[in-house]
Amino acid sequence: MTQALDRLQIGILVDPNCFVPDIIGVYTAFCDAPNCDIHFLWKHTNPQKNTESFGMLHPFPVHATTTFADCPQNLDVLCVGASTPNIWSDEETLAFLADQGSHAKYLIGICAGSLTLAAAGLLTGYRATTNFQAIEALALFGAIPVAGGHVVVDRNRFTAGPVTGSFEAGLMVLAELRGKEAAKEAELTMEYAPHPPFGTGSPELAGPELTQKLMQRYAPFANQFGAALQTAAERLMITKA
Amino acid sequence: MTQALDRLQIGILVDPNCFVPDIIGVYTAFCDAPNCDIHFLWKHTNPQKNTESFGMLHPFPVHATTTFADCPQNLDVLCVGASTPNIWSDEETLAFLADQGSHAKYLIGICAGSLTLAAAGLLTGYRATTNFQAIEALALFGAIPVAGGHVVVDRNRFTAGPVTGSFEAGLMVLAELRGKEAAKEAELTMEYAPHPPFGTGSPELAGPELTQKLMQRYAPFANQFGAALQTAAERLMITKA
Repeated sequence: MTQALDRLQIGILVDPNCFVPDIIGVYTAFCDAPNCDIHFLWKHTNPQKNTESFGMLHPFPVHATTTFADCPQNLDVLCVGASTPNIWSDEETLAFLADQGSHAKYLIGICAGSLTLAAAGLLTGYRATTNFQAIEALALFGAIPVAGGHVVVDRNRFTAGPVTGSFEAGLMVLAELRGKEAAKEAELTMEYAPHPPFGTGSPELAGPELTQKLMQRYAPFANQFGAALQTAAERLMITKA
Repeated sequence: MTQALDRLQIGILVDPNCFVPDIIGVYTAFCDAPNCDIHFLWKHTNPQKNTESFGMLHPFPVHATTTFADCPQNLDVLCVGASTPNIWSDEETLAFLADQGSHAKYLIGICAGSLTLAAAGLLTGYRATTNFQAIEALALFGAIPVAGGHVVVDRNRFTAGPVTGSFEAGLMVLAELRGKEAAKEAELTMEYAPHPPFGTGSPELAGPELTQKLMQRYAPFANQFGAALQTAAERLMITKA
């Protein structure tokens, strides 16, 4: 270990519509770190039923373990994954994220979770990324969009595309907090040596035809997202003014 | 779509100590498949608190959505991830898996979930794999252990190492059920184009020093696992006799 083992406080937002594959990698990176608390954060800790969907027909049954009110004020990591557009007009959640994010040691935004951090004003002036369909939307909030499918690091902000981005950002932040050796060991424990079975995991790999097909399938959601993001960007301008 | 869209029934075991990163990939592969039900299976659907750990200090707060009693008898997929050794002596769960596994179209075992399928008698005579530390233990149950870090396919059984194995087996089984085009689209949707940050995701990549360090750290758990597997293997021999 290259750093002393200060007790880590990891906070992961689990709103009712959160996309669990986007937060699971950060959980996996820290789940067996010694001397570490993981808080699954929401307004309440009751079991919740996801009620919305953005093309996902099947929510994953997760529930919070720590309320916003009980969340420690010294988070080492604040992680947010994708959710549905209503999160971008949820004042209580945005205020919670803006507060915690202003002093958390590291912020991680995965997939549309980056847009939620941006809507809370936490990416203004930062280079950032999200899922490939939505990268340009980051500019609405004054962030600098970066494409390419890698984790984007700007100061203490780590943002990435969906799913695998969560594992990679999680391991990178673990390395920051506990040293590279601990992160290498975590990467071996989770056997993160992937073999993508079809080789279509990015627009470049998939080619224009498959990419267009996907974009068309998601067009109705993209419109819904676009309108909600526009509203959120206007809200942020007013909040910051 | 190359196949007709028969309604899919996906069953994923979520016992109180299940390691969620091992089931999340199968969930991700099917979560926006049209005309598909996903059942998170356990004895009850109450919120449950994970009580045991195998080196993991932090359980993930998941709960079931479908009881064993309510599980449809025509599962297309039965998926089991890692858990704690007590699952291998849980008669109710092993009987449920043996029954459902005998007629499910596809079986997926991820990490120690393969050993659970094996303990239920479902891998006898099958080539199979699990996490690298435990591969040889599959032979206790009459399975043929395969190392190497890839998804192992033998007839309708798909087994793999932890975490990424879940995404890869999930996509491969989606391709079987819904055709390769659907799987390619799902791989693009989840942007499964990983860039492992430290390149230590297998014993070969990590080298002997780091691998030994990890094995030593897990030695106490390995002993506990070994004893439980031996008991489970004896139980299976009696059950099959």
